[in-house]
Amino acid sequence: MSNKKPRTAITPTREDDFPEWYQQVIKAADMAENSPVRGCMIIKPYGYAVWENIQKNFDAMIKDLDVENAYFPLLIPMEFMSREAEHVDGFAKECAVVTHHRLEADEDGKLGPAPSAKLEDPYIIRPTSETIIGDTMARWVQSYRDLPLKLNQWCNVMRWELRTRIFLRTSEFLWQEGHNAFEDEKGGVEDHEKMLEAYADLVENYMAVPVIRGKKTPEETFPGAVSTLTIEAMMQDGKALQSATSHYMGQNFAKSIGIKYQNRDGDESYAHTTSWGLSTRTIGAMIMVHGDDDGMVMPPRVAPYPVGIIPILRDDQDKDKILAYCADIVAQLRAIGIRAKINNSDSRTPDKMWGMIKKGVPVRVEIGAREMQEGTLTHVRRDLGRDSKASCKASEFMQQIQGILDDIHITLYQRAKDFMEQNITEAKTLADMEDLYKSGHKGFVKTPIAVLDDADLARVKKENAITARCMPFSDNGQSVIFGKAY
Amino acid sequence: MSNKKPRTAITPTREDDFPEWYQQVIKAADMAENSPVRGCMIIKPYGYAVWENIQKNFDAMIKDLDVENAYFPLLIPMEFMSREAEHVDGFAKECAVVTHHRLEADEDGKLGPAPSAKLEDPYIIRPTSETIIGDTMARWVQSYRDLPLKLNQWCNVMRWELRTRIFLRTSEFLWQEGHNAFEDEKGGVEDHEKMLEAYADLVENYMAVPVIRGKKTPEETFPGAVSTLTIEAMMQDGKALQSATSHYMGQNFAKSIGIKYQNRDGDESYAHTTSWGLSTRTIGAMIMVHGDDDGMVMPPRVAPYPVGIIPILRDDQDKDKILAYCADIVAQLRAIGIRAKINNSDSRTPDKMWGMIKKGVPVRVEIGAREMQEGTLTHVRRDLGRDSKASCKASEFMQQIQGILDDIHITLYQRAKDFMEQNITEAKTLADMEDLYKSGHKGFVKTPIAVLDDADLARVKKENAITARCMPFSDNGQSVIFGKAY
Repeated sequence: MSNKKPRTAITPTREDDFPEWYQQVIKAADMAENSPVRGCMIIKPYGYAVWENIQKNFDAMIKDLDVENAYFPLLIPMEFMSREAEHVDGFAKECAVVTHHRLEADEDGKLGPAPSAKLEDPYIIRPTSETIIGDTMARWVQSYRDLPLKLNQWCNVMRWELRTRIFLRTSEFLWQEGHNAFEDEKGGVEDHEKMLEAYADLVENYMAVPVIRGKKTPEETFPGAVSTLTIEAMMQDGKALQSATSHYMGQNFAKSIGIKYQNRDGDESYAHTTSWGLSTRTIGAMIMVHGDDDGMVMPPRVAPYPVGIIPILRDDQDKDKILAYCADIVAQLRAIGIRAKINNSDSRTPDKMWGMIKKGVPVRVEIGAREMQEGTLTHVRRDLGRDSKASCKASEFMQQIQGILDDIHITLYQRAKDFMEQNITEAKTLADMEDLYKSGHKGFVKTPIAVLDDADLARVKKENAITARCMPFSDNGQSVIFGKAY
Repeated sequence: MSNKKPRTAITPTREDDFPEWYQQVIKAADMAENSPVRGCMIIKPYGYAVWENIQKNFDAMIKDLDVENAYFPLLIPMEFMSREAEHVDGFAKECAVVTHHRLEADEDGKLGPAPSAKLEDPYIIRPTSETIIGDTMARWVQSYRDLPLKLNQWCNVMRWELRTRIFLRTSEFLWQEGHNAFEDEKGGVEDHEKMLEAYADLVENYMAVPVIRGKKTPEETFPGAVSTLTIEAMMQDGKALQSATSHYMGQNFAKSIGIKYQNRDGDESYAHTTSWGLSTRTIGAMIMVHGDDDGMVMPPRVAPYPVGIIPILRDDQDKDKILAYCADIVAQLRAIGIRAKINNSDSRTPDKMWGMIKKGVPVRVEIGAREMQEGTLTHVRRDLGRDSKASCKASEFMQQIQGILDDIHITLYQRAKDFMEQNITEAKTLADMEDLYKSGHKGFVKTPIAVLDDADLARVKKENAITARCMPFSDNGQSVIFGKAY
């Protein structure tokens, strides 16, 4: 029947129910799941490997920028939260509070916090390490010789969330948080811009997610910051996802926490600081940008394995030979720096193929008796599907594979970029923008900054959940991009 | 005066006060410090870089053994602790308990846990993830096809400690914990041995710390385990430090947490599990094995930078040229895979030299106007000191440096191995062993297993803090190594 929908590996489809499709893709791709701990996820090996690749690439970038990694305590003294009113408003209301340091059994044998082990001052689990890193910087920075000081931490943080969604909003998540200090405004502002560019580089050139670079409007700027820069991506349902932010705090943070130093003239100055973070949330963005109705589509540069190999074993006769040939293909790929994995479980071949499709493995290789005998292999691109199926000599494949992977990256990036550009509509006034969304517009709306006033902005945010995503650099601060957001 | 002690960069010396020397080395080498959070440390960039190198090398080893990394929640539901009595006895009495999920200000404006946000069931911060990973495995493992399942996690854990010492015993520390499940005993036991060998490989071949491989006596075996294997290192004060352990749990853990599967005969079986961990504690071992009275001595393979470069700038005239020459040397080293760092701060040259000595940089390179003009450099080995000072053409240095670093590794390892072997004394009876320690023996004592009985062992542990470190593999279970331990 021509109007019957084609069967898809994921139910529901994106069109039918985007939020539920998202959850089903994560499940089908075996990336993460909910845990017995309220609001916290378990990141499964296939999802965690993506985070490891993000970490590896971004870590190399920041080390090239002379950022040093360090590790700060998980717990934050209550006193630090009290010190900074803005900080508490921004973060710390909903957070995990540690009040006891020992368990004991009550009369019925039930375990609970020991009354005798109540802490005089409770601790909170870091929702960010800003205060404890700031307090440390205040001790480490004495002279202009100690600046710039560029510190980064890869860690877990907690913010008690009521409504959670895997990767996008969970009570615990993984991230990196960078906190840099400089002698003067010039150093701080340059760094602030440089870190945003590093994020854009990571997200576009490794995750194949196109972004709009811009500056937050004053209302959306991080509490206490002079300026917040952001990269905003468009999901396939047209909503925005803020993928990373870079804040310039001016001297505000240094003054509140005491980061002062003897400057080149021998006088006391406060440092200019920046902070910048990117979290496991971006994995959610990647899924919502690239996934399709058959599951995940992994961008090759952060894919756990860009090449997946399926041995096709029709009978036991050639089994060992085929597996040995597959192992050799993996070894050859490894030797040219390409991660590859064989599925040699005893599942059925079609199940293995659909497994790799749902996981979004960029290139699937199939090897049976014929391929083994001829020294060939059959390969299919996940982004183009079965029409891209082709066979070639294994030696040719080794010469071509890096080019194929690069082409998949470019194809995914360009497809997402075209989608984003097609779904940005211009509106001359705020009323026009609201009309667009009321009549079903999915996507972003760009409006000249001259027609906006604060009261109207607050109203549309409250009434329609439409927020100013950023003032894009490309328009030199003359326009604002609006969208509904994750 | 001939009997005057030579001046040392660290006060006190190892001989005068070993525990205090240890703290001073960490401070002088800028590796870590105490934090405002009771019992928790801040790992500074120079210390954290060592952990990163340990991680990088061990992570590659376990990936080669088909272990997959994943991430599990920070918080453990109270119910999990209650489920396993042995587990609670082993770990969870002294732990951080989360009882509230929101802060609010009281009448005086003081922040504290909000009474309305009290959790019905408190959580604890993981002292280990054993129970939550076990609970997950119980869900993931259904059939023999799901086995082996090999999971590892790099994370932070907390155990509330009363007396803390940086790296060695802190309330929060970083580690990896591996939890593997197998169909049968053979799989479990082999894995248990393989993981111990991986630890020994890491600690000996990367950290240059020689270890004794052995099995714990029944009294020292991990609660609930069938067998605990350990690698034990000897510190320069003769004490032992357990550097990593690998446990084989038999089916005990699987039975208590429900990891069962349909076996190849269609029946239900419990999995055989192992667990294995290594923490930031090993950095403490490395300091106490290699450090000297001038500070840290870094083994080259985990050193943050095996080569440190000091530009010697006598006047401003040649400054730019010398710095450019130094930068070129760094680039050449990088190109052959060797991490290097220039100290181009405006500190005095002798301060820079002593800074690198205290940090234990394996090879210090000095470059002044003469070296720059001649295309040479001067280099000194940290392990051999000023007698090893030599000059050569930069091109020769590039050819030699990998060999020099390997030789430093071997020298440090052999020096520590000789020390350990010289400080293991044999005793025929337990009484002889006690006499040895009473008369000032520092080091290990080896005793035939045949002469030991449980009551005596318990007594010497209680009275003299002498513990059975392990039954070394080299004696096939016929002897026990004793020592005082960190």
